[in-house]
Amino acid sequence: MTIITQARSLQENLKKNHKNSSVGFVPTMGALHAGHKSLIELSKKENEITVVSIFINPTQFLAGEDFDKYPQKFESDKKICELCKVDYLFYPQIDTIYTKDEVLIKAPSYKGFILEGENRPGHFDGMLQIVLKLFNIVHPTNAYFGKKDAQQLILIKQMVKNLFLDINIVECDIIREANGLALSSRNSYLSSIEYTQALAISRSLERAAKAIANGQRDALAIQALIKDILTEAEISNIEYIQVVNRDFEPLTTIELKNTILLIAVKIGTTRLIDNFWL
Amino acid sequence: MTIITQARSLQENLKKNHKNSSVGFVPTMGALHAGHKSLIELSKKENEITVVSIFINPTQFLAGEDFDKYPQKFESDKKICELCKVDYLFYPQIDTIYTKDEVLIKAPSYKGFILEGENRPGHFDGMLQIVLKLFNIVHPTNAYFGKKDAQQLILIKQMVKNLFLDINIVECDIIREANGLALSSRNSYLSSIEYTQALAISRSLERAAKAIANGQRDALAIQALIKDILTEAEISNIEYIQVVNRDFEPLTTIELKNTILLIAVKIGTTRLIDNFWL
Repeated sequence: MTIITQARSLQENLKKNHKNSSVGFVPTMGALHAGHKSLIELSKKENEITVVSIFINPTQFLAGEDFDKYPQKFESDKKICELCKVDYLFYPQIDTIYTKDEVLIKAPSYKGFILEGENRPGHFDGMLQIVLKLFNIVHPTNAYFGKKDAQQLILIKQMVKNLFLDINIVECDIIREANGLALSSRNSYLSSIEYTQALAISRSLERAAKAIANGQRDALAIQALIKDILTEAEISNIEYIQVVNRDFEPLTTIELKNTILLIAVKIGTTRLIDNFWL
Repeated sequence: MTIITQARSLQENLKKNHKNSSVGFVPTMGALHAGHKSLIELSKKENEITVVSIFINPTQFLAGEDFDKYPQKFESDKKICELCKVDYLFYPQIDTIYTKDEVLIKAPSYKGFILEGENRPGHFDGMLQIVLKLFNIVHPTNAYFGKKDAQQLILIKQMVKNLFLDINIVECDIIREANGLALSSRNSYLSSIEYTQALAISRSLERAAKAIANGQRDALAIQALIKDILTEAEISNIEYIQVVNRDFEPLTTIELKNTILLIAVKIGTTRLIDNFWL
């Protein structure tokens, strides 16, 4: 595995040595867990070359968010990448990626500013900015993103389309603990009491999925069902429970194969999201 | 010459048939004149394949500007491209390029919102948006832009750097009539009286250049000299006369090899810009 910190060096390496190879790309903020590992493994299976980036991107954090305390685990991340036989690990410093007064990316005004975008205004602008930069550095054939960040995934797919990027975005299933909790680097913030509370999130989605399988099609009823289970677990800070289609338009009636159930809550000071794709 | 209207078709053509060729790209809004022709000829000389695009980009026009009356001359443009032996002419419709509620590009907050950006707020956002889309469709080795749109050129170079685009931006000299007038598709709006007035613009830059050659280094004096000549020609609607460096920072003292003199005026309803690079 080659570790590269300079953008130009990675670009030149890929251009010189792998011009005709398929390149799989897994952009991450580090603190790798089994969710990331599943993306890397899929990339390894589907491409000749796999590039993983680790970069905690400052522009997607809002003032007061957890940028400063976001978990940094480079040594164990490196080991995971080595074990997964990653070809290139891109690990840039902030000043490699950003200069002052940049050309900026702005998320679309509807899809970018509802739900996560409403709760974290500007977050998706910064997310799209870093993803676009990384795409232009790596020029991947396939790029791998988890469905857990559902709105992020949909926005990246839209950016690829709007900007005519020649990249295939691969939607990857959410990886969960045996107890159902969706893997997230932020789970490490949870106390053991909070962790137990957090299990209600996936449990509520599971129950909702079961209700839909049993014929429930009313979005309001599904939202109420989820809310009950979260409230039972004493999760009082619910940011949203939403039922949308793949264009992130709210649904009143569940559409099979075109519905995403979305949850965002805060447990203590930790913000957690989870979702279920039909 | 192959005329292509679909983005995907151009992308596939270039990828399939010219993957290892150098590609020169000249993006235009049509109404081609000798200025465009010089860019195309340079591209022909420096690349194996030359792509010209003709697209009057709506997002770079402000409300009330001349989008609706911008000159359209496709038949003669086509002929010019054929005579120049252009390989691909990309001539898309608006709905090939844009959908609703897009991911947007925002010009940098300083360089994007002074001078042209102050007089045409949002113009550069739309300009960078279309240039980025076209770059991603064509993937040029070299892209050709005239120095006449100085701020545009500097912003495109910044975007290429900020977004890690692997494209060489070629700065091309301003092409002028024998009488000095900088070529512009908008010159066709001028009445014959206005045309004569407009000659004062290049004349003032010439005199300024001469004064600098003779040792004048005071930017205020240069601005005053230009203003006098414009005023003499009864050009009363002067938007700006500015002396900046390559980073578009205003200068009080002329720096040889790092100064651009910039003029924007309105003559009648026609907005004209011109400049001189030291």
